[in-house]
Amino acid sequence: MIYYSYENFKADIRELSDKCKGFNADTIVAITRGGMTMSHALSMALNIRNLQSIRCESYDDDTQRESLFIQEECDFTQSKRVLIADDIVDSGKTLHVLIPVLQKRYPAILFATVSLFTKPTALVQPNYSLHEAHDWIDFFWERDFLKPDSL
Amino acid sequence: MIYYSYENFKADIRELSDKCKGFNADTIVAITRGGMTMSHALSMALNIRNLQSIRCESYDDDTQRESLFIQEECDFTQSKRVLIADDIVDSGKTLHVLIPVLQKRYPAILFATVSLFTKPTALVQPNYSLHEAHDWIDFFWERDFLKPDSL
Repeated sequence: MIYYSYENFKADIRELSDKCKGFNADTIVAITRGGMTMSHALSMALNIRNLQSIRCESYDDDTQRESLFIQEECDFTQSKRVLIADDIVDSGKTLHVLIPVLQKRYPAILFATVSLFTKPTALVQPNYSLHEAHDWIDFFWERDFLKPDSL
Repeated sequence: MIYYSYENFKADIRELSDKCKGFNADTIVAITRGGMTMSHALSMALNIRNLQSIRCESYDDDTQRESLFIQEECDFTQSKRVLIADDIVDSGKTLHVLIPVLQKRYPAILFATVSLFTKPTALVQPNYSLHEAHDWIDFFWERDFLKPDSL
């Protein structure tokens, strides 16, 4: 398990925002919960005011197969180029399901995807990513706000 | 001007989440962009999976009066108690306009508001807040991701 600190994140966001700059996004969408802090950071680094979120959650359905719940309530009336951000692309199932849904729903919009970490085995590789993930990543936002006695 | 560091934030979120705990929120809504990082942190500290966002922006209308643009596309079908989070309640105009809109739109839902900082002169005081703001607050998410040469 690797602890991913705020200091790591700070340096990474500067680098990742440089990578994404060429896409010229006008909108950033966080996949919650993991993509929230990073989307905020990217929106500041790239000076993109249109910042929204989509809630995606994996769950086991009645047949014990993994399904994806998507709560997509975005407003893209002022958007042309949308950057979808998640902390880690692990199995890649979220993006694999989500991006075709978005492309069908908003055919005039160009989507790109960005993550801090990506597993080489993921079903979908994001357009922009910094690190290959091999171990479990313990992101600071998953650890730092819990009371010491709850860890 | 006061620089508000990640270390300050980390300690504050633990304290603020204790303050909000009694409200028993099932949903957290970030006011973007300022409320994004803190909503993520509160959702982890309070273990609330339903995390959404509303985009609110002040702008000058044709008559040079300040107006508020609200992009509210939430899904509250699974929500009963919703915590609305913003980094700072300054003039208080955002909450003053937004909360009555939400209460009218979702009469069955109980809303509460939370901020890190609040000005004593704000039109509306949030239900939960930690600090009185007197100076300009330079939040780490507004500063740390910019390249040194752009500051």
